[in-house]
Amino acid sequence: MTEYSKGLEGVIAAETEMSFIDGKKGVLEYVGIPIGELSANSTFEETVFLLWNKKLPKKGELAEFTAQLRDRYAPPEQILDMIRTLPKEAGTMHVLRTVISALGMHDDDANANDLEAARQKSLTILAQAPALVAAFDRHRKGRDYIAPDPSLTFAENFLYMLNGKKPTETMARAFDICMILHADHGLNNSTFTARVVISTLSDIYSALTAAVGSLRGPLHGGANEGVMVMLNEIPTVADAEKYVMEKLANKDRIMGFGHRVYKAKDPRATDLQKLAKKLAEDTGNTDLYEKSSKIEEIMEREVGSKGIYPNVDFYSATTYHCIGLELDLFTPMFALSRLGGWSGHIIEQLTDNRLFRPGAKYVGPHDQPYTPVEKR
Amino acid sequence: MTEYSKGLEGVIAAETEMSFIDGKKGVLEYVGIPIGELSANSTFEETVFLLWNKKLPKKGELAEFTAQLRDRYAPPEQILDMIRTLPKEAGTMHVLRTVISALGMHDDDANANDLEAARQKSLTILAQAPALVAAFDRHRKGRDYIAPDPSLTFAENFLYMLNGKKPTETMARAFDICMILHADHGLNNSTFTARVVISTLSDIYSALTAAVGSLRGPLHGGANEGVMVMLNEIPTVADAEKYVMEKLANKDRIMGFGHRVYKAKDPRATDLQKLAKKLAEDTGNTDLYEKSSKIEEIMEREVGSKGIYPNVDFYSATTYHCIGLELDLFTPMFALSRLGGWSGHIIEQLTDNRLFRPGAKYVGPHDQPYTPVEKR
Repeated sequence: MTEYSKGLEGVIAAETEMSFIDGKKGVLEYVGIPIGELSANSTFEETVFLLWNKKLPKKGELAEFTAQLRDRYAPPEQILDMIRTLPKEAGTMHVLRTVISALGMHDDDANANDLEAARQKSLTILAQAPALVAAFDRHRKGRDYIAPDPSLTFAENFLYMLNGKKPTETMARAFDICMILHADHGLNNSTFTARVVISTLSDIYSALTAAVGSLRGPLHGGANEGVMVMLNEIPTVADAEKYVMEKLANKDRIMGFGHRVYKAKDPRATDLQKLAKKLAEDTGNTDLYEKSSKIEEIMEREVGSKGIYPNVDFYSATTYHCIGLELDLFTPMFALSRLGGWSGHIIEQLTDNRLFRPGAKYVGPHDQPYTPVEKR
Repeated sequence: MTEYSKGLEGVIAAETEMSFIDGKKGVLEYVGIPIGELSANSTFEETVFLLWNKKLPKKGELAEFTAQLRDRYAPPEQILDMIRTLPKEAGTMHVLRTVISALGMHDDDANANDLEAARQKSLTILAQAPALVAAFDRHRKGRDYIAPDPSLTFAENFLYMLNGKKPTETMARAFDICMILHADHGLNNSTFTARVVISTLSDIYSALTAAVGSLRGPLHGGANEGVMVMLNEIPTVADAEKYVMEKLANKDRIMGFGHRVYKAKDPRATDLQKLAKKLAEDTGNTDLYEKSSKIEEIMEREVGSKGIYPNVDFYSATTYHCIGLELDLFTPMFALSRLGGWSGHIIEQLTDNRLFRPGAKYVGPHDQPYTPVEKR
């Protein structure tokens, strides 16, 4: 065991029945259903049911699952009080990580991790997370908290709590599709983190808190912010060519392109592209969409042969911007959706658990003496 | 890639120069120095320097490192205010996880993760963590917070803030030795978690918060509480034989025995045993020590041939009890010490980073249709 695969690339670390990725063909399925079918026809609520139960719900099951979720939209008052004391300039992901962790202090059975407890706690956290994000955003803007509306869908309710008015149907559907597309994606770093943590038989709060911290990283969920920053750096569509060619000449990374797993166009990017186009037209952001489209065209011409294609972050940036979300809410949006996937993986891990405890290759010295400080 | 090693057992996941474990021989070295040498001669402060710098400090270096640590003992006032609002019945590890996460909201450069920032932030969190634990313990008991005393060592200062009086020399040294022994241990689950999280280029708060959540698990740091619970279930030394034999007959686990890595006696258990014996005599807890010793004797006779020996948790339970720590502070103590190791691994990971992104073996169906809800 002297050789190892850095970053565990190519190493199988778990079994899953949730999502299947064929990176060469650009295929993503949730429980065998192509992602495009789900983004076209399903809802986030139904998709989470699918991931947790490995089957689409019957009508009654979906109604019950949705009702349970809506019943739990409101976070504990103590957590809302805590949010009102937070520094307004705090990073949104640092806030989300802290408040999800804090929920564990207000659960008098926080350590329960049998399968039923895992499902119930996951459902509660998923239901409350949108209110936590919206509450902090309103707090930092000096606005009053808006209580959730249990007559609304997950997507509608979040946008309502954030903005204080109900979203248009197009906005809500666009947001819902983003939630579907980001919900699960094999053993990505944050999902792997959640499984590693729960494998100590720790608890749902510990596992989900850890996953939020992982997702914050620029090499993971944080990348969608980088795409928007790049789009803002390019004044007009006409400037895209020069910008991209300079970056490529300097061997700089173009944000939103390339993926460890995909060597073809990320199927989520294909779905998001259509959505981004329509939304951009509806919201007067055609320039932004055209810049994205132009960058993709240049990248296809320059590096398409190397398997570097747009990933999910590339068009989700435009989509979120058109929905009216601020830049530093992009990664929290990813988290709201991925909570569905993380929880499903926690349930899978607990169903057939084995502690993650890999080995390390020791590359330091041996048999060193402890020299007293005077003799060093 | 259809076969995989569950729990990544036997898989090398990273290189390290920090600790070396020979599980068959029962050897543990930090940067090549046998753990027994360090527990006999070193201090926790010096051990952390060793782990972070891969060498023992010269006199001036140790003085500077210690001075920097002591300068940072006091947590931000806002965090102390937050602790005063926490539910008194909250789990101590849920609290520690939340407040370490919360520190990230009060750092206006929280995302910095260059090597110097990683060292500086790690040092600050390590310095403040004892105050966070002590502050919550006093809060839940309705006692006033005691500010840290920068004239005291890490070990002395914690016990002073917890109890409101300076510890005896024996107590402080015993606690210091526990801190040395628990500081690092290869790619245990929480250390691996910290490395996985920081590999997204997330931040020190995210990585350490995640590690605390992992350590809470009963299959990891939470096990030392289980040992104490077991010792309390055995009324006297004379009852140990019956208790252990019944457990073994029922194939129940005896807490504090066996380890994924060690198939010999954990060298930390050897060191802790001597310490526990002396402390037990000094503090009138000889019964507790004798119970432990008796259990070890029975286990050696019954299952020693299977490589099941005492691990670090077995005698740390007695030690912590003799120091006067409450049961639910045992795992937080482990965390105070392991923060040194976690931080060292974060620094190593950032020095030569590659995103952890293993694969999953998909075992579900393919090419499933999206059936409309009416037709399910």
